[in-house]
Amino acid sequence: MEIKTSSLKIHSNGENDIIDLTPQIAESIAKSGLTEGFVNIFVSGSTGAVTTIEYEDGLLKDFPAALERLAPKNNNYEHEKRWHDGNGHSHVRASLVGPSLTVPFQDSRLLLGTWQQIVFIELDNNSRRRELVIQIVGAS
Amino acid sequence: MEIKTSSLKIHSNGENDIIDLTPQIAESIAKSGLTEGFVNIFVSGSTGAVTTIEYEDGLLKDFPAALERLAPKNNNYEHEKRWHDGNGHSHVRASLVGPSLTVPFQDSRLLLGTWQQIVFIELDNNSRRRELVIQIVGAS
Amino acid sequence: MEIKTSSLKIHSNGENDIIDLTPQIAESIAKSGLTEGFVNIFVSGSTGAVTTIEYEDGLLKDFPAALERLAPKNNNYEHEKRWHDGNGHSHVRASLVGPSLTVPFQDSRLLLGTWQQIVFIELDNNSRRRELVIQIVGAS
Repeated sequence: MEIKTSSLKIHSNGENDIIDLTPQIAESIAKSGLTEGFVNIFVSGSTGAVTTIEYEDGLLKDFPAALERLAPKNNNYEHEKRWHDGNGHSHVRASLVGPSLTVPFQDSRLLLGTWQQIVFIELDNNSRRRELVIQIVGAS
Repeated sequence: MEIKTSSLKIHSNGENDIIDLTPQIAESIAKSGLTEGFVNIFVSGSTGAVTTIEYEDGLLKDFPAALERLAPKNNNYEHEKRWHDGNGHSHVRASLVGPSLTVPFQDSRLLLGTWQQIVFIELDNNSRRRELVIQIVGAS
Repeated sequence: MEIKTSSLKIHSNGENDIIDLTPQIAESIAKSGLTEGFVNIFVSGSTGAVTTIEYEDGLLKDFPAALERLAPKNNNYEHEKRWHDGNGHSHVRASLVGPSLTVPFQDSRLLLGTWQQIVFIELDNNSRRRELVIQIVGAS
């Protein structure tokens, strides 16, 4: 077994931008030469998250709407009282969705469902450059 | 270290059916011959999820009730407007709970708490056949 | 590649105590002698969870407040009707946040963001001794 760690640079277009990472991750696995194993995608940062979703325009609105119910943007946040950066809700949402996702692959192919994509969700309140960690572990 | 990938076929009895996977996963580890490592359980699909819970009848109702607060079934979903399959809330809940869970084992035994089971939760709006990925990684 | 499994004993100060685990996990990685890989932190129990957060006093209040919206302490829980231990909400919150977190490291350093810490959150309704599983996997 081997382990290969790389970074994936992306650019988000503001709050609630959801970016499909699947093609780049599939390509990383192909390049790794590993055929059976798993990939861990990790967000180094506390205002972004990773999960899977059916990547279609409807859900790209529905998922942020659910997060708004859980951590409304205009609530009073203790974080805001101290730091005044307007992103208390972003931190709360990121901790809940989570910074880490593990996806298996076999025969060099991600074992995703047909209508399931790996996504990064920007939860901060502005456009940002992001560097994700892509760690591929497996056998060739 | 070795890696062993298999699939686990289950059948869910409709929305919010929560299925205890612990016995089958424990058996897979026993059969693998690996003694120390971890198992990753992955849902290939965008309307189911995995987590752990104390598997008792009360919580099997309480957990879906909480998801109903987060993504009510009768809200208006953009997903519904486009696809008309009545499962916008299912997708949102699945992305939040997550498709992937990693559990360690040692001496061939899952390191779960006494009152903690590994579960699949059916979030789609009908009974379904599901094929989960079980990936066991470790040393013998 | 090698795998090293240990336990981390902590003591929580009651409900919603959030404990920064980062220094101890960083030390475990340093002691392991492994330079590239990942650590999985797992809560053996059904009323605690792990995630990452910016560890500052504001968010330590904001995150529990969001969980209170999702699973209010004073709701009626089926779990409570059966077991009368006052922690139905704790179980629901734990299943949602999740018991497992995977974080990559390279050059023996955790690949966390600058303002991102690994935390355990006590969701049960009293102070507890907890034993977490720390599993480090990687190459030296």
